[in-house]
Amino acid sequence: MSRIRDINLWESGKKKIEWVKNFMPVVNTLESKYSFSQIFKDKTIGMCIHLEAKTARLALAFKNCGAKVVCAGSNPLSTQDDVAAYLVKEGIEVFAWRGESSEDYERNLEEVLKKEPNLIIDDGFDLTVLLYKKFSYLKHKIFGVGEETTTGVKRAKALLKDRGLDFPVVAVNDSKLKFLFDNRYGTGESAISSFMRNTNLLISGRTFVVAGYGWVGRGIAQKLQGLKAKVIITEVDPIKALEAHMDGFSVMPMKEAVKIGDVFITATGNFKVIGEEYFYDLKDGAILANAGHFNVEIDMETLEKIAIEKREVRDNIHEYKLPNGKRVFVIAEGRLLNLAGGDGHPIEIMDLSFGIQFLVMKWLMERGKELPKVVISVSEDIELEIAKIKLDSLGISIDTLTPEQLNYLQSWE
Amino acid sequence: MSRIRDINLWESGKKKIEWVKNFMPVVNTLESKYSFSQIFKDKTIGMCIHLEAKTARLALAFKNCGAKVVCAGSNPLSTQDDVAAYLVKEGIEVFAWRGESSEDYERNLEEVLKKEPNLIIDDGFDLTVLLYKKFSYLKHKIFGVGEETTTGVKRAKALLKDRGLDFPVVAVNDSKLKFLFDNRYGTGESAISSFMRNTNLLISGRTFVVAGYGWVGRGIAQKLQGLKAKVIITEVDPIKALEAHMDGFSVMPMKEAVKIGDVFITATGNFKVIGEEYFYDLKDGAILANAGHFNVEIDMETLEKIAIEKREVRDNIHEYKLPNGKRVFVIAEGRLLNLAGGDGHPIEIMDLSFGIQFLVMKWLMERGKELPKVVISVSEDIELEIAKIKLDSLGISIDTLTPEQLNYLQSWE
Amino acid sequence: MSRIRDINLWESGKKKIEWVKNFMPVVNTLESKYSFSQIFKDKTIGMCIHLEAKTARLALAFKNCGAKVVCAGSNPLSTQDDVAAYLVKEGIEVFAWRGESSEDYERNLEEVLKKEPNLIIDDGFDLTVLLYKKFSYLKHKIFGVGEETTTGVKRAKALLKDRGLDFPVVAVNDSKLKFLFDNRYGTGESAISSFMRNTNLLISGRTFVVAGYGWVGRGIAQKLQGLKAKVIITEVDPIKALEAHMDGFSVMPMKEAVKIGDVFITATGNFKVIGEEYFYDLKDGAILANAGHFNVEIDMETLEKIAIEKREVRDNIHEYKLPNGKRVFVIAEGRLLNLAGGDGHPIEIMDLSFGIQFLVMKWLMERGKELPKVVISVSEDIELEIAKIKLDSLGISIDTLTPEQLNYLQSWE
Amino acid sequence: MSRIRDINLWESGKKKIEWVKNFMPVVNTLESKYSFSQIFKDKTIGMCIHLEAKTARLALAFKNCGAKVVCAGSNPLSTQDDVAAYLVKEGIEVFAWRGESSEDYERNLEEVLKKEPNLIIDDGFDLTVLLYKKFSYLKHKIFGVGEETTTGVKRAKALLKDRGLDFPVVAVNDSKLKFLFDNRYGTGESAISSFMRNTNLLISGRTFVVAGYGWVGRGIAQKLQGLKAKVIITEVDPIKALEAHMDGFSVMPMKEAVKIGDVFITATGNFKVIGEEYFYDLKDGAILANAGHFNVEIDMETLEKIAIEKREVRDNIHEYKLPNGKRVFVIAEGRLLNLAGGDGHPIEIMDLSFGIQFLVMKWLMERGKELPKVVISVSEDIELEIAKIKLDSLGISIDTLTPEQLNYLQSWE
Repeated sequence: MSRIRDINLWESGKKKIEWVKNFMPVVNTLESKYSFSQIFKDKTIGMCIHLEAKTARLALAFKNCGAKVVCAGSNPLSTQDDVAAYLVKEGIEVFAWRGESSEDYERNLEEVLKKEPNLIIDDGFDLTVLLYKKFSYLKHKIFGVGEETTTGVKRAKALLKDRGLDFPVVAVNDSKLKFLFDNRYGTGESAISSFMRNTNLLISGRTFVVAGYGWVGRGIAQKLQGLKAKVIITEVDPIKALEAHMDGFSVMPMKEAVKIGDVFITATGNFKVIGEEYFYDLKDGAILANAGHFNVEIDMETLEKIAIEKREVRDNIHEYKLPNGKRVFVIAEGRLLNLAGGDGHPIEIMDLSFGIQFLVMKWLMERGKELPKVVISVSEDIELEIAKIKLDSLGISIDTLTPEQLNYLQSWE
Repeated sequence: MSRIRDINLWESGKKKIEWVKNFMPVVNTLESKYSFSQIFKDKTIGMCIHLEAKTARLALAFKNCGAKVVCAGSNPLSTQDDVAAYLVKEGIEVFAWRGESSEDYERNLEEVLKKEPNLIIDDGFDLTVLLYKKFSYLKHKIFGVGEETTTGVKRAKALLKDRGLDFPVVAVNDSKLKFLFDNRYGTGESAISSFMRNTNLLISGRTFVVAGYGWVGRGIAQKLQGLKAKVIITEVDPIKALEAHMDGFSVMPMKEAVKIGDVFITATGNFKVIGEEYFYDLKDGAILANAGHFNVEIDMETLEKIAIEKREVRDNIHEYKLPNGKRVFVIAEGRLLNLAGGDGHPIEIMDLSFGIQFLVMKWLMERGKELPKVVISVSEDIELEIAKIKLDSLGISIDTLTPEQLNYLQSWE
Repeated sequence: MSRIRDINLWESGKKKIEWVKNFMPVVNTLESKYSFSQIFKDKTIGMCIHLEAKTARLALAFKNCGAKVVCAGSNPLSTQDDVAAYLVKEGIEVFAWRGESSEDYERNLEEVLKKEPNLIIDDGFDLTVLLYKKFSYLKHKIFGVGEETTTGVKRAKALLKDRGLDFPVVAVNDSKLKFLFDNRYGTGESAISSFMRNTNLLISGRTFVVAGYGWVGRGIAQKLQGLKAKVIITEVDPIKALEAHMDGFSVMPMKEAVKIGDVFITATGNFKVIGEEYFYDLKDGAILANAGHFNVEIDMETLEKIAIEKREVRDNIHEYKLPNGKRVFVIAEGRLLNLAGGDGHPIEIMDLSFGIQFLVMKWLMERGKELPKVVISVSEDIELEIAKIKLDSLGISIDTLTPEQLNYLQSWE
Repeated sequence: MSRIRDINLWESGKKKIEWVKNFMPVVNTLESKYSFSQIFKDKTIGMCIHLEAKTARLALAFKNCGAKVVCAGSNPLSTQDDVAAYLVKEGIEVFAWRGESSEDYERNLEEVLKKEPNLIIDDGFDLTVLLYKKFSYLKHKIFGVGEETTTGVKRAKALLKDRGLDFPVVAVNDSKLKFLFDNRYGTGESAISSFMRNTNLLISGRTFVVAGYGWVGRGIAQKLQGLKAKVIITEVDPIKALEAHMDGFSVMPMKEAVKIGDVFITATGNFKVIGEEYFYDLKDGAILANAGHFNVEIDMETLEKIAIEKREVRDNIHEYKLPNGKRVFVIAEGRLLNLAGGDGHPIEIMDLSFGIQFLVMKWLMERGKELPKVVISVSEDIELEIAKIKLDSLGISIDTLTPEQLNYLQSWE
């Protein structure tokens, strides 16, 4: 009933999932803890995810704890067909393949919704938006949604403001273990790894422009700084701009940065961050990449329109020749740098996020119907439980406050 | 009417204040903007502050904008007598001198309250607590308090919980421009500068234990890491502990850290962080210092009791000989490392905080009576105004969202 | 006459070479400068190199400047068949294919020597050693050898000591532009890039053991430190050990490090750095990789012998199960981490080395017969010429000493 | 017979020396090892040194090992009168006081030479140059000289070239334990510490221009980078310039840098690095400091001449008003930043250098008459002995090569 590339690819998918399992102590621990009681029995979990080994591991953990699981890919370029095949072999329904068209993408999301999920894991909010647009009769079946991304949370809030929500949407992205870790360390490292792999260029001494000094932007900027790049930050928020300055970065408007930068990485969550007014001022051979959410931060539409020639010059890199004779290289067609060109986030980072997702699904199932129908945060208990499991797995123990110290913190004299 | 060490010291104090004025563009700009209209006319501002050149500059700015200003020192060791002298010469009342006793300290705070201030700037909440204890008849005259420190804000919240507040207390410390800048960059650098100056020891390769990975702790830890120290973090919060781990630090309980560390810097806001159970396990020659608020993070009381010998071995450093024969060096008797041993925070950092304090006082004066009588945050408008003044002074301009981009951020489809 | 995998792969090879050409300003400049006069006319250059796009670019530059060029691969795993194909298409003779056996490897080197080269570029000294062993009748035709690696230079010196040399061997590896740049920045970044790509693991917070604090080791260690790993250094030289300590690293013997490390990267130039006595003490799941020269730094022979099970668990990664039940992961079978698993050094780094190689070949051709028959350094003139070309390409200009300053430096009063 | 400020200051000097003794394990170990046999018996050691606690500790170690010791200060601003007093009290002859005039400085050096030293420790080569100029009849008594600084070694080489040497001059400065540690870590940290202490300014985000990327310059630059300053490097050597670029610094000519920098630190060993042509282009309020050798790197003579006003605005800082209205701040009148304004190098760094000096004096005494009369290097044996003593004191043990590994390194097949 699944729609994937080829079931026979499963063996390579299995190997990939076994590899990541070695480095996912949090999900492993949760699975062990809850599989005996089959806590997700009789529940269907719909997942719209970057379909690769780590998310697959989460899907399997849900399944091993009793859930029926249905998956679609959240990005046509991030789906790994062998991983999808192994999931299907293990009894999970999957509707995704690498390079699916926009139409197929939407049809695949529809397939997930047709299975009438009780719980949704979303990555960008496409699945939930589709539910509102075409499957609103299913709303009452939903305990809640766990949304993974900043962009998705923004969209959830906009939807709430516009139409109201019919179930809680948990902003997994706003949990500390997500935004402090996934965005900062995960995207930070994987964007750089992907840049290196895709270009074979040196980072030392190269001038990077990072657009946006939010968690993603600062993760990337700090890792680049650690590798001795020259880093320029563009921002719209004066306070973040000042932080960037104090953190040792050059801060300037994009208008000036375009003339200087060798490489541009967008991480704003906004669109047209590098838009038409800037393309002509780029240096010949400038490289553009996006580490935000969609392929709109770089205005690809306009770039396609104004370019007089386009060709693939290396896997995942296209060269655009502009009317002024300059060439611009774009990695992964402006889609997510760290996903499209590589294996995505480092394994241990996703282990944290997915530990959160696991407990969020459990919490929504147990308490979702009582919760307010708004965008809500991950409860602190869940965060602490995950952090402790992770520290344990690292063999790290920490201090605890004495009763006397607790008391001291609460007194005012 | 003031009580200071010696009015004749003013000339040296003047020079110090002129020096800092060179590097305080934010306060300078605000003073220029509001002195013509004398906005603080007929208001009395009571300040309990580390009395040195930078706070003095703020006090003068208030005065130049029309206020009557009365100051006490917030720490017996941080008052600079020459600076106090110049303030008095310029018409500000001051009750403070270096090395004043605890009794004098309290009496000096009383003198400030006797002037019946309308606005209070507090640093640790001692002045406000004293108001509640002994001068509660003055409460109705107060528009509000600006509290500078984490510890002070904690005490304000405890007081609120316990007795209720009679005027708003603005948690200046919780403003982004304070906790992101002062705690992190300011204390980070000045604690290190003070360590270097007081010990003449090398940081490269030395093992530092930083207790607490809050804003102050991480500021210090990151600066030490940048100077290539080996840094161990102790924490009670699992999430912060995990961040410290991911930021490249060793994380362990204090019980283990005491056996390894060469230097200990406490930054928890709690007390007895290095207490009796740990002193005996320290290495011979271990150095202890505190960058939190009071001299209680290191349990000095107990250390004094158990030591068999104590002597000053260098300015600001005491050696304690323990019964087990080991020696422990304590900088500045466990008081604030960056203040007691040096000139305190770097000038530009205080300029940001004091810009905030300036506008907070203006805001409390204009709106304090309508505000809820609780601990409140600095309004975002104030933060943005200060950040912009600072960026301007650095010659940095930044991007602004286009209407189209603003719209994009608010849509959900 | 070439022996390669498949000539039809050329198109992809061409694209790769075009890509690197964009980022090789030094070789491009030299080619432009010397192609008109065809300076290498009538000379045959034998190259034993990692056969990928960047070395191919150098080979083409020689050809475009008049030389006859014959190439073999210096490592069976680093040859890229499409690149080899394009070289052949452009008229260069190539004897190499990916995965060639040891016997084929030697036979291919023999083919190069049969073309009776006048100039040799060697990478590990295998080609020159073979010349001494089997083709010594060709020695008189050789103007000289440019040797690229530390290991090769060591072998050249040992050969000189043992038998004497019959022509100069230029220690390209000992040029500043090589050991300060290639080893440090090049291997530093590419080893990390390869680790990330091959494992999909996080670097932040992970414990790496880097064996050897020479230029390669410190390059890797500093980049890992910049990415916030915890780094342990093992060394045999007390001075380097002390430097590592002062640079913020933990220093300990391998005996202790094996018990703590998550990942081990050898960079000593020696063999059995991780040998039998250590395998059993490794943590379960430890990852081993080599960034030195041959696959002997990790004692793979012994590991193969003692392991009770071996399987490939991910591309380029083998899992060995030890008798004590622990698993050890080895990247690229202990061969060069940065080459075997990726595209090798960043392009710009090789551009510097290859600029040196270009001018060294020119210098040997013009002056080789007069030079002493020993291991000699790259002349300072060559180094400065290359550095200036590179700075120019970056748009960087620098200061020059005034005559007065030059004079000051030379006076002693 | 000594000429110092005041013998009664000794008690404070004693305390300072006791403090540094806690952190000088290398000199302590050497003293213990050689005091019993009184190895320097009947020898006179003349020292021209920065007369503060650490050098005093070395002088005492010589004395405790039997030598007669005579000291002068190497810099009128670095002599500490209390330390000098304690040395005299302990039986060492001292000719130095803080703030001595140039004439007194020379007369004091003469006093040292009049004692007819057999061994000389020099810091800048002034003492030895004076010997050649006025005391050449003493040359035959000299076993040799240990010269501490880069500048001094340059002068020694110039003297050798010009007139020849009559005894060996050991370039202590060229020993690895000196130039890799003292220049890089020592000056790096102490220059920054001194900047912080003298200005109370923030380093984060500030633009520093470091002139010279030798060991001193890169030490300072890297520490500033670690503290998140923006750092510009000026250089005359293209290879060093390229290294600086790859290490993440901006590289440009001084001509451009003067317009951008907030703070300038010279570290070139040359003169007029910031000369007349640059003063007018500095920003208003620019701060100048020197971490090279003499007060000639900044052309103070010219600055004094062109300034229309000069006043001390803070201890150790003078403000010069230029005809164009701009103000320039100079720290310590252009003398050595880290010495004049603070306690000089961190203790442990000097311990390494002084361990070298100790063994060099022993070596010159035992072998000096047989050694070539040129500038010679510290023998590797001495370096290794000191490094091992230091590692031992840190509790660090390292690996040793197996015989099999040694053999491997020497073979070429």
